[in-house]
Amino acid sequence: MERKEISKAVLKRLPGYLAYLKNIPDDASPYISATALAAALSMGEVQVRKDLAMVSDGGRPKIGYLRESLIEDISQFLGYDNTTDAILVGAGKLGQALLGYGGFEAYGLNILAAFDERPVSKQTHEGRSIYTMDKMEGFCRANKVLMGIITVPAQYAQQVCDLMIRCGIKAVWNFAPVHLEVPENILVQNENMATSLAVLSMHLQAQMKDKK
Amino acid sequence: MERKEISKAVLKRLPGYLAYLKNIPDDASPYISATALAAALSMGEVQVRKDLAMVSDGGRPKIGYLRESLIEDISQFLGYDNTTDAILVGAGKLGQALLGYGGFEAYGLNILAAFDERPVSKQTHEGRSIYTMDKMEGFCRANKVLMGIITVPAQYAQQVCDLMIRCGIKAVWNFAPVHLEVPENILVQNENMATSLAVLSMHLQAQMKDKK
Repeated sequence: MERKEISKAVLKRLPGYLAYLKNIPDDASPYISATALAAALSMGEVQVRKDLAMVSDGGRPKIGYLRESLIEDISQFLGYDNTTDAILVGAGKLGQALLGYGGFEAYGLNILAAFDERPVSKQTHEGRSIYTMDKMEGFCRANKVLMGIITVPAQYAQQVCDLMIRCGIKAVWNFAPVHLEVPENILVQNENMATSLAVLSMHLQAQMKDKK
Repeated sequence: MERKEISKAVLKRLPGYLAYLKNIPDDASPYISATALAAALSMGEVQVRKDLAMVSDGGRPKIGYLRESLIEDISQFLGYDNTTDAILVGAGKLGQALLGYGGFEAYGLNILAAFDERPVSKQTHEGRSIYTMDKMEGFCRANKVLMGIITVPAQYAQQVCDLMIRCGIKAVWNFAPVHLEVPENILVQNENMATSLAVLSMHLQAQMKDKK
Protein backbone atom coordinates (compact mmCIF):
# COMPACT_ATOMS: atom_id res chain seq x y z
CA MET A 1 0.00 0.00 0.00
CA GLU A 2 1.03 3.61 -0.40
CA ARG A 3 3.25 4.97 2.27
CA LYS A 4 1.62 7.69 4.39
CA GLU A 5 3.31 10.20 6.66
CA ILE A 6 3.38 8.62 10.08
CA SER A 7 3.85 10.17 13.48
CA LYS A 8 6.51 9.03 15.92
CA ALA A 9 3.75 8.09 18.36
CA VAL A 10 2.35 5.55 15.90
CA LEU A 11 5.84 4.30 15.19
CA LYS A 12 6.27 3.67 18.90
CA ARG A 13 3.14 1.53 19.10
CA LEU A 14 3.68 -0.61 16.01
CA PRO A 15 6.49 -2.78 17.45
CA GLY A 16 4.18 -3.61 20.36
CA TYR A 17 1.42 -4.85 18.05
CA LEU A 18 3.93 -6.84 16.08
CA ALA A 19 5.40 -8.50 19.16
CA TYR A 20 1.92 -9.46 20.34
CA LEU A 21 0.80 -10.80 16.96
CA LYS A 22 3.93 -12.91 16.60
CA ASN A 23 3.33 -14.48 20.00
CA ILE A 24 -0.20 -15.69 19.29
CA PRO A 25 -0.16 -19.52 19.22
CA ASP A 26 -0.36 -21.11 15.78
CA ASP A 27 -3.57 -22.97 16.61
CA ALA A 28 -5.51 -19.76 17.41
CA SER A 29 -7.88 -18.21 14.86
CA PRO A 30 -6.03 -16.91 11.79
CA TYR A 31 -7.97 -13.64 12.10
CA ILE A 32 -7.65 -10.85 14.64
CA SER A 33 -9.71 -7.69 15.02
CA ALA A 34 -8.53 -4.26 16.17
CA THR A 35 -10.94 -4.71 19.10
CA ALA A 36 -9.27 -7.93 20.22
CA LEU A 37 -5.79 -6.46 19.80
CA ALA A 38 -6.77 -3.35 21.78
CA ALA A 39 -8.22 -5.47 24.59
CA ALA A 40 -5.14 -7.71 24.74
CA LEU A 41 -2.77 -4.75 25.03
CA SER A 42 -5.07 -2.62 27.28
CA MET A 43 -5.18 0.11 24.68
CA GLY A 44 -7.94 2.28 23.19
CA GLU A 45 -9.82 0.57 20.38
CA VAL A 46 -10.08 3.70 18.21
CA GLN A 47 -6.35 4.24 18.38
CA VAL A 48 -5.50 0.66 17.46
CA ARG A 49 -8.00 0.75 14.60
CA LYS A 50 -6.43 3.95 13.20
CA ASP A 51 -2.88 2.69 13.62
CA LEU A 52 -3.58 -0.54 11.78
CA ALA A 53 -5.36 1.30 8.97
CA MET A 54 -2.18 3.36 8.48
CA VAL A 55 -0.06 0.33 7.72
CA SER A 56 -2.41 -2.27 6.28
CA ASP A 57 -5.46 -2.25 4.04
CA GLY A 58 -6.30 -5.88 4.81
CA GLY A 59 -8.94 -5.19 7.50
CA ARG A 60 -12.42 -6.68 6.80
CA PRO A 61 -15.57 -5.55 8.69
CA LYS A 62 -16.61 -7.97 11.45
CA ILE A 63 -13.72 -10.31 10.63
CA GLY A 64 -10.65 -8.22 11.18
CA TYR A 65 -7.20 -8.83 9.75
CA LEU A 66 -5.64 -12.04 8.58
CA ARG A 67 -2.94 -12.34 11.25
CA GLU A 68 -0.12 -13.43 8.96
CA SER A 69 -0.82 -10.58 6.50
CA LEU A 70 -0.97 -8.04 9.30
CA ILE A 71 2.38 -9.25 10.66
CA GLU A 72 3.83 -8.92 7.18
CA ASP A 73 2.37 -5.44 6.64
CA ILE A 74 3.66 -4.09 9.95
CA SER A 75 7.09 -5.70 9.49
CA GLN A 76 7.38 -4.28 6.02
CA PHE A 77 6.23 -0.88 7.17
CA LEU A 78 8.84 -0.82 9.93
CA GLY A 79 11.51 -2.01 7.54
CA TYR A 80 12.13 -5.15 9.58
CA ASP A 81 11.98 -7.41 6.56
CA ASN A 82 14.76 -5.50 4.80
CA THR A 83 17.92 -6.62 6.46
CA THR A 84 20.11 -3.64 7.28
CA ASP A 85 23.82 -4.29 7.59
CA ALA A 86 25.51 -2.31 10.33
CA ILE A 87 28.87 -1.96 11.99
CA LEU A 88 29.46 -1.23 15.66
CA VAL A 89 32.28 0.97 16.92
CA GLY A 90 33.47 0.60 20.51
CA ALA A 91 33.74 -3.00 21.68
CA GLY A 92 33.70 -2.20 25.39
CA LYS A 93 31.12 -3.45 27.89
CA LEU A 94 28.08 -1.94 26.20
CA GLY A 95 29.30 -2.81 22.71
CA GLN A 96 29.91 -6.40 23.75
CA ALA A 97 26.46 -6.60 25.33
CA LEU A 98 24.83 -5.38 22.10
CA LEU A 99 26.94 -7.74 19.98
CA GLY A 100 25.91 -10.59 22.26
CA TYR A 101 22.22 -9.73 22.17
CA GLY A 102 20.69 -12.08 19.64
CA GLY A 103 17.40 -10.23 19.33
CA PHE A 104 18.22 -7.64 16.68
CA GLU A 105 17.80 -10.03 13.75
CA ALA A 106 14.05 -9.94 14.37
CA TYR A 107 14.18 -6.22 13.59
CA GLY A 108 16.20 -6.70 10.43
CA LEU A 109 19.46 -5.52 11.96
CA ASN A 110 22.57 -7.45 11.08
CA ILE A 111 25.76 -6.32 12.81
CA LEU A 112 28.49 -7.41 10.41
CA ALA A 113 31.54 -6.55 12.50
CA ALA A 114 32.84 -4.39 15.32
CA PHE A 115 35.70 -1.90 15.40
CA ASP A 116 37.73 -0.63 18.30
CA GLU A 117 40.79 1.57 18.89
CA ARG A 118 42.43 -1.26 20.82
CA PRO A 119 40.45 -4.51 20.49
CA VAL A 120 40.92 -6.79 23.51
CA SER A 121 40.23 -9.77 21.28
CA LYS A 122 39.86 -10.45 17.55
CA GLN A 123 36.41 -11.95 17.87
CA THR A 124 33.28 -11.74 20.00
CA HIS A 125 31.90 -14.79 21.82
CA GLU A 126 29.49 -15.18 18.92
CA GLY A 127 32.28 -15.23 16.35
CA ARG A 128 31.92 -11.70 14.97
CA SER A 129 35.20 -10.04 14.05
CA ILE A 130 36.52 -7.06 15.99
CA TYR A 131 38.90 -5.02 13.82
CA THR A 132 41.13 -2.04 14.51
CA MET A 133 39.79 1.35 13.42
CA ASP A 134 42.02 1.64 10.35
CA LYS A 135 40.12 -1.24 8.75
CA MET A 136 36.79 0.55 9.04
CA GLU A 137 36.62 2.59 5.85
CA GLY A 138 37.61 -0.30 3.57
CA PHE A 139 35.15 -2.61 5.29
CA CYS A 140 32.25 -0.17 5.05
CA ARG A 141 32.91 0.58 1.36
CA ALA A 142 33.31 -3.09 0.46
CA ASN A 143 30.12 -4.11 2.27
CA LYS A 144 28.12 -0.95 1.45
CA VAL A 145 27.33 -0.44 5.13
CA LEU A 146 24.71 2.27 5.72
CA MET A 147 24.18 2.03 9.50
CA GLY A 148 26.65 2.58 12.30
CA ILE A 149 26.25 1.92 16.01
CA ILE A 150 28.31 4.07 18.38
CA THR A 151 29.22 2.59 21.76
CA VAL A 152 32.43 4.49 22.49
CA PRO A 153 32.89 6.85 25.48
CA ALA A 154 31.25 10.27 25.06
CA GLN A 155 34.41 12.17 24.18
CA TYR A 156 35.22 9.98 21.17
CA ALA A 157 31.68 9.79 19.80
CA GLN A 158 31.83 12.86 17.52
CA GLN A 159 35.04 11.78 15.81
CA VAL A 160 33.69 8.25 15.35
CA CYS A 161 30.50 9.72 13.90
CA ASP A 162 32.49 11.92 11.48
CA LEU A 163 34.48 8.90 10.38
CA MET A 164 31.31 6.86 9.86
CA ILE A 165 29.91 9.57 7.61
CA ARG A 166 33.16 9.63 5.59
CA CYS A 167 32.73 5.86 5.21
CA GLY A 168 29.29 6.34 3.61
CA ILE A 169 27.10 5.67 6.65
CA LYS A 170 23.69 7.41 6.56
CA ALA A 171 22.05 6.34 9.82
CA VAL A 172 23.73 6.42 13.23
CA TRP A 173 22.48 4.68 16.36
CA ASN A 174 24.22 6.54 19.15
CA PHE A 175 24.58 5.02 22.62
CA ALA A 176 27.15 7.59 23.80
CA PRO A 177 25.67 10.19 26.15
CA VAL A 178 26.50 13.14 23.92
CA HIS A 179 24.87 15.22 21.20
CA LEU A 180 26.30 14.57 17.73
CA GLU A 181 26.57 17.18 14.96
CA VAL A 182 25.76 15.71 11.53
CA PRO A 183 24.88 16.94 8.02
CA GLU A 184 21.20 17.18 7.14
CA ASN A 185 20.95 13.90 5.22
CA ILE A 186 22.27 11.83 8.13
CA LEU A 187 19.93 10.57 10.85
CA VAL A 188 21.09 10.14 14.43
CA GLN A 189 18.94 8.15 16.80
CA ASN A 190 20.04 8.51 20.43
CA GLU A 191 19.72 5.72 22.96
CA ASN A 192 20.73 7.34 26.17
CA MET A 193 20.57 4.80 28.97
CA ALA A 194 22.60 6.99 31.33
CA THR A 195 19.97 9.71 31.04
CA SER A 196 17.15 7.23 31.60
CA LEU A 197 18.82 6.03 34.76
CA ALA A 198 19.33 9.60 35.95
CA VAL A 199 15.65 10.40 35.36
CA LEU A 200 14.56 7.29 37.30
CA SER A 201 17.01 7.93 40.08
CA MET A 202 15.86 11.56 40.45
CA HIS A 203 12.27 10.39 40.73
CA LEU A 204 13.19 8.02 43.53
CA GLN A 205 15.17 10.72 45.34
CA ALA A 206 12.21 13.09 45.12
CA GLN A 207 9.87 10.39 46.47
CA MET A 208 12.15 9.72 49.43
CA LYS A 209 12.23 13.42 50.20
CA ASP A 210 8.43 13.65 50.16
CA LYS A 211 8.23 10.83 52.66
CA LYS A 212 10.47 12.55 55.20
CA MET B 1 23.91 23.11 46.81
CA GLU B 2 20.20 23.69 46.52
CA ARG B 3 18.42 21.59 43.97
CA LYS B 4 17.02 23.62 41.06
CA GLU B 5 14.41 22.59 38.56
CA ILE B 6 16.28 21.13 35.66
CA SER B 7 15.19 20.50 32.09
CA LYS B 8 15.44 17.14 30.42
CA ALA B 9 17.79 18.69 27.86
CA VAL B 10 20.31 19.51 30.60
CA LEU B 11 19.84 16.08 32.09
CA LYS B 12 20.75 14.58 28.74
CA ARG B 13 24.01 16.51 28.55
CA LEU B 14 25.25 15.89 32.10
CA PRO B 15 26.20 12.22 31.62
CA GLY B 16 28.36 13.28 28.67
CA TYR B 17 30.29 15.79 30.77
CA LEU B 18 30.70 13.22 33.49
CA ALA B 19 32.00 10.54 31.12
CA TYR B 20 34.53 13.00 29.68
CA LEU B 21 35.71 14.26 33.08
CA LYS B 22 36.20 10.73 34.37
CA ASN B 23 38.35 9.85 31.38
CA ILE B 24 40.83 12.69 31.80
CA PRO B 25 44.22 11.17 32.76
CA ASP B 26 45.21 11.53 36.41
CA ASP B 27 48.36 13.48 35.57
CA ALA B 28 46.45 16.27 33.77
CA SER B 29 45.73 19.58 35.53
CA PRO B 30 43.33 19.15 38.46
CA TYR B 31 41.29 22.07 37.12
CA ILE B 32 39.03 22.31 34.10
CA SER B 33 37.14 25.29 32.70
CA ALA B 34 33.76 25.32 30.99
CA THR B 35 35.61 26.63 27.92
CA ALA B 36 37.93 23.62 27.83
CA LEU B 37 35.07 21.19 28.39
CA ALA B 38 33.01 22.82 25.64
CA ALA B 39 35.94 22.64 23.20
CA ALA B 40 36.63 18.99 24.03
CA LEU B 41 33.02 17.98 23.42
CA SER B 42 32.43 20.34 20.43
CA MET B 43 29.65 22.10 22.30
CA GLY B 44 28.68 25.73 22.83
CA GLU B 45 30.60 27.40 25.64
CA VAL B 46 27.62 29.34 26.99
CA GLN B 47 25.54 26.18 27.24
CA VAL B 48 28.25 24.23 29.06
CA ARG B 49 28.82 27.15 31.44
CA LYS B 50 25.10 27.32 32.27
CA ASP B 51 24.76 23.57 32.68
CA LEU B 52 27.67 23.34 35.09
CA ALA B 53 26.38 26.30 37.11
CA MET B 54 23.12 24.37 37.58
CA VAL B 55 24.80 21.48 39.33
CA SER B 56 27.92 22.89 40.96
CA ASP B 57 28.89 26.14 42.66
CA GLY B 58 32.60 25.26 42.62
CA GLY B 59 33.50 27.28 39.50
CA ARG B 60 36.19 29.97 39.98
CA PRO B 61 36.81 32.78 37.46
CA LYS B 62 39.83 32.13 35.18
CA ILE B 63 40.57 28.83 36.96
CA GLY B 64 37.46 26.79 36.38
CA TYR B 65 36.32 23.82 38.40
CA LEU B 66 38.35 21.42 40.49
CA ARG B 67 37.84 18.30 38.39
CA GLU B 68 37.28 15.90 41.25
CA SER B 69 34.67 18.18 42.86
CA LEU B 70 32.88 18.67 39.56
CA ILE B 71 32.72 14.90 39.02
CA GLU B 72 31.31 14.53 42.52
CA ASP B 73 28.75 17.32 42.03
CA ILE B 74 27.47 15.94 38.72
CA SER B 75 27.37 12.36 40.03
CA GLN B 76 25.48 13.44 43.09
CA PHE B 77 23.11 15.52 41.03
CA LEU B 78 22.35 12.59 38.75
CA GLY B 79 21.92 10.28 41.71
CA TYR B 80 24.75 8.05 40.55
CA ASP B 81 26.41 8.01 43.96
CA ASN B 82 23.27 6.64 45.63
CA THR B 83 23.17 2.99 44.76
CA THR B 84 19.70 2.00 43.61
CA ASP B 85 18.75 -1.64 43.99
CA ALA B 86 16.66 -2.99 41.16
CA ILE B 87 15.16 -6.22 39.94
CA LEU B 88 14.79 -7.28 36.32
CA VAL B 89 11.80 -9.24 35.03
CA GLY B 90 12.14 -11.25 31.83
CA ALA B 91 15.41 -13.16 31.54
CA GLY B 92 15.25 -13.64 27.77
CA LYS B 93 17.83 -12.39 25.29
CA LEU B 94 17.53 -8.70 26.13
CA GLY B 95 17.29 -9.35 29.88
CA GLN B 96 20.39 -11.53 29.76
CA ALA B 97 22.27 -8.87 27.79
CA LEU B 98 21.41 -6.22 30.39
CA LEU B 99 22.30 -8.55 33.27
CA GLY B 100 25.61 -9.26 31.57
CA TYR B 101 26.41 -5.58 30.93
CA GLY B 102 28.81 -4.58 33.69
CA GLY B 103 28.51 -0.85 33.11
CA PHE B 104 25.45 0.03 35.19
CA GLU B 105 27.34 0.13 38.50
CA ALA B 106 28.94 3.38 37.34
CA TYR B 107 25.45 4.90 37.25
CA GLY B 108 24.55 3.61 40.70
CA LEU B 109 22.33 0.81 39.42
CA ASN B 110 22.60 -2.52 41.16
CA ILE B 111 20.48 -5.33 39.69
CA LEU B 112 19.95 -7.65 42.63
CA ALA B 113 18.19 -10.51 40.88
CA ALA B 114 16.12 -11.46 37.85
CA PHE B 115 12.68 -13.07 37.63
CA ASP B 116 11.09 -15.05 34.83
CA GLU B 117 7.92 -17.04 34.23
CA ARG B 118 10.02 -20.05 33.21
CA PRO B 119 13.71 -19.45 33.98
CA VAL B 120 15.97 -21.45 31.65
CA SER B 121 18.63 -21.50 34.36
CA LYS B 122 18.84 -20.60 38.05
CA GLN B 123 21.70 -18.17 37.59
CA THR B 124 23.15 -15.77 35.05
CA HIS B 125 26.74 -16.16 33.80
CA GLU B 126 27.69 -13.49 36.32
CA GLY B 127 26.17 -15.43 39.20
CA ARG B 128 22.98 -13.42 39.70
CA SER B 129 19.96 -15.50 40.69
CA ILE B 130 17.02 -15.95 38.33
CA TYR B 131 13.86 -16.78 40.30
CA THR B 132 10.36 -17.78 39.28
CA MET B 133 7.74 -15.01 39.38
CA ASP B 134 6.08 -16.20 42.60
CA LYS B 135 9.25 -15.27 44.52
CA MET B 136 9.12 -11.66 43.35
CA GLU B 137 6.91 -10.00 45.94
CA GLY B 138 8.72 -11.51 48.92
CA PHE B 139 12.09 -10.60 47.45
CA CYS B 140 11.11 -6.99 46.72
CA ARG B 141 9.64 -6.48 50.18
CA ALA B 142 12.61 -8.07 51.95
CA ASN B 143 15.13 -6.01 49.97
CA LYS B 144 13.04 -2.80 49.80
CA VAL B 145 13.47 -2.72 46.00
CA LEU B 146 12.23 0.53 44.44
CA MET B 147 13.22 0.08 40.79
CA GLY B 148 12.07 -2.53 38.31
CA ILE B 149 13.38 -3.27 34.83
CA ILE B 150 10.93 -4.81 32.36
CA THR B 151 12.36 -6.94 29.55
CA VAL B 152 9.39 -9.24 28.88
CA PRO B 153 7.52 -9.39 25.53
CA ALA B 154 5.11 -6.49 24.96
CA GLN B 155 1.92 -8.37 25.82
CA TYR B 156 3.11 -9.28 29.32
CA ALA B 157 4.59 -5.89 30.18
CA GLN B 158 1.47 -4.32 31.71
CA GLN B 159 0.81 -7.22 34.06
CA VAL B 160 4.47 -7.30 35.11
CA CYS B 161 4.30 -3.55 35.71
CA ASP B 162 1.15 -3.92 37.83
CA LEU B 163 2.83 -6.64 39.86
CA MET B 164 5.92 -4.48 40.36
CA ILE B 165 3.77 -1.68 41.74
CA ARG B 166 2.05 -4.11 44.13
CA CYS B 167 5.54 -5.11 45.27
CA GLY B 168 6.35 -1.50 46.22
CA ILE B 169 8.33 -0.47 43.13
CA LYS B 170 8.20 3.27 42.34
CA ALA B 171 10.32 3.59 39.19
CA VAL B 172 10.03 1.36 36.14
CA TRP B 173 12.57 1.09 33.34
CA ASN B 174 10.58 -0.35 30.46
CA PHE B 175 12.29 -2.05 27.51
CA ALA B 176 9.07 -3.60 26.19
CA PRO B 177 7.71 -1.77 23.12
CA VAL B 178 4.40 -0.87 24.72
CA HIS B 179 2.85 2.01 26.65
CA LEU B 180 2.32 1.25 30.35
CA GLU B 181 -0.52 2.64 32.46
CA VAL B 182 0.63 3.57 35.97
CA PRO B 183 -0.59 5.61 38.95
CA GLU B 184 0.63 9.19 39.22
CA ASN B 185 3.38 8.56 41.76
CA ILE B 186 5.08 5.93 39.61
CA LEU B 187 7.61 6.92 36.96
CA VAL B 188 8.01 4.90 33.77
CA GLN B 189 11.05 5.52 31.60
CA ASN B 190 10.79 3.87 28.19
CA GLU B 191 13.78 2.48 26.34
CA ASN B 192 12.37 1.49 23.02
CA MET B 193 15.11 -0.01 20.89
CA ALA B 194 12.65 -1.51 18.42
CA THR B 195 11.30 1.97 17.70
CA SER B 196 14.80 3.38 17.31
CA LEU B 197 15.62 0.71 14.79
CA ALA B 198 12.40 1.36 12.91
CA VAL B 199 13.16 5.10 12.75
CA LEU B 200 16.67 4.42 11.44
CA SER B 201 15.46 1.85 8.96
CA MET B 202 12.77 4.20 7.61
CA HIS B 203 15.37 6.91 7.11
CA LEU B 204 17.51 4.52 5.06
CA GLN B 205 14.52 3.40 2.99
CA ALA B 206 13.63 7.03 2.25
CA GLN B 207 17.23 7.75 1.20
CA MET B 208 17.28 4.78 -1.17
CA LYS B 209 14.06 5.97 -2.73
CA ASP B 210 15.46 9.48 -3.28
CA LYS B 211 18.43 7.97 -5.09
CA LYS B 212 16.29 6.08 -7.57
